[in-house]
Amino acid sequence: LGQLILVGLGLNDDAGISLCGLQEVKNADNVFIELYTNLMPDFSAKRLEDAARRELTTVTRKQLEEENGQIILQAARNGRTVLLVPGDPLIATTHVNLRIEAKKHGIQTRVVHGASIISAAIGLSGLHNYKFGRTVTIPFPDQNPSETPYTAILQNKQQGLHTLCLLDINAEQQRYLTVRDALAALQNTETRRKQGIIVPDTLIVGVSRAGSDNPTVKAAMLKDAFNLDFGGPPQTLIFPGRLHFTEADALITLADAPKDLRKIAE
Amino acid sequence: LGQLILVGLGLNDDAGISLCGLQEVKNADNVFIELYTNLMPDFSAKRLEDAARRELTTVTRKQLEEENGQIILQAARNGRTVLLVPGDPLIATTHVNLRIEAKKHGIQTRVVHGASIISAAIGLSGLHNYKFGRTVTIPFPDQNPSETPYTAILQNKQQGLHTLCLLDINAEQQRYLTVRDALAALQNTETRRKQGIIVPDTLIVGVSRAGSDNPTVKAAMLKDAFNLDFGGPPQTLIFPGRLHFTEADALITLADAPKDLRKIAE
Repeated sequence: LGQLILVGLGLNDDAGISLCGLQEVKNADNVFIELYTNLMPDFSAKRLEDAARRELTTVTRKQLEEENGQIILQAARNGRTVLLVPGDPLIATTHVNLRIEAKKHGIQTRVVHGASIISAAIGLSGLHNYKFGRTVTIPFPDQNPSETPYTAILQNKQQGLHTLCLLDINAEQQRYLTVRDALAALQNTETRRKQGIIVPDTLIVGVSRAGSDNPTVKAAMLKDAFNLDFGGPPQTLIFPGRLHFTEADALITLADAPKDLRKIAE
Repeated sequence: LGQLILVGLGLNDDAGISLCGLQEVKNADNVFIELYTNLMPDFSAKRLEDAARRELTTVTRKQLEEENGQIILQAARNGRTVLLVPGDPLIATTHVNLRIEAKKHGIQTRVVHGASIISAAIGLSGLHNYKFGRTVTIPFPDQNPSETPYTAILQNKQQGLHTLCLLDINAEQQRYLTVRDALAALQNTETRRKQGIIVPDTLIVGVSRAGSDNPTVKAAMLKDAFNLDFGGPPQTLIFPGRLHFTEADALITLADAPKDLRKIAE
């Protein structure tokens, strides 16, 4: 009887939802929305409410995580219930957990996918998707310092692979880790680990506001990267591994990389 | 003056496009569409034309690859031009190449993202995104046999990482590699490479028709996987690495994995 439909909002604003996702909102008995797992800088709940002619009920991190989404599950037991989430649902483990809980309560679940920062950032960089190793999140160094990102970049580089680094966000505090602070944190780890992967000549690619009308995509050597202006959040950081010459070409043409990059490409 | 806007169609059907993408189609002077880089089984060009009140011009693989998209670039030099593509643009290198060509011709480019099989398949599996190693495409064994997929699965497994395997498609011949044929090809490689990664007790997850109303997501041991019915294409195959217990739980609850999976999880 009950049904829970997870609908991805895509990136950046309220027009990132698919036609199919909007239809689900219109058809639902209850519509919840969470906006803390990712930042959508130009999102207006009001505009989406107007487009769907429905009211949206915002759920907090506490309601979704500490209270295991009870408010949503209760609604879903009694009717068609939509949860709107930034990006593509199920990339955040919170949404997978909610789906498992729903299934265990006998509630049918469905997913309407949306654009994700994962494929968007990879695509905007011009680097080849199949050459990315594992993705890692760089946490705020003052809240949750970790050497995991350094290790992931190192292991990927050893195989010639690129690393996509998502940068931590804390929506409640409106704090968003920047490319600059992420690089500083990694330099700090380099002084301890000394593997020579975060050095002045390390190539980096920064991507900010993917999905907006004015995303910034810039490639530079680390020593020059601190002077780049990536504008507002959200930001993402990529460490390229070995470059195919078409990838070097893409970085030079699309991301203002230094032209001598062609020399180190294969 | 000229402008090229790459718009992602998302997954499965004509309602996978974002509100923003549809608006770009409405505002464009010229609208092209390519449907050969990915299969969208329930897509209707007619329905999209009706929704946008615009005619779509289909471009072929030959026009986009052998002729370097000249027909699109020519249109984009003289007006606002949209190219509609399945999934998220720029995941296919063809679209990156077109973007580079456009930039070199002084044509402004923009991207409207769409849902991608990459995040959709990972999400539907319930496995953790940050535990996926590099993605690989399994080619048709009779057209382009390759040991690269085997090597990628092996290298990922050695690090405890999952592997997402995209399965080859040939839209012109309407051929789509199935989970079953992909497994058979990998078994074949196993007889030569003998690393013990494609054996009867290897856990696999198959995902078909991601983005549709009835995706199939099933986890099983290889020896049982040949009896599973994944229905029609497109299909995707995942080889899990080490499993966190919440991932085992997800596979059991959401993908009918055998219950004793919990024993091998961490």
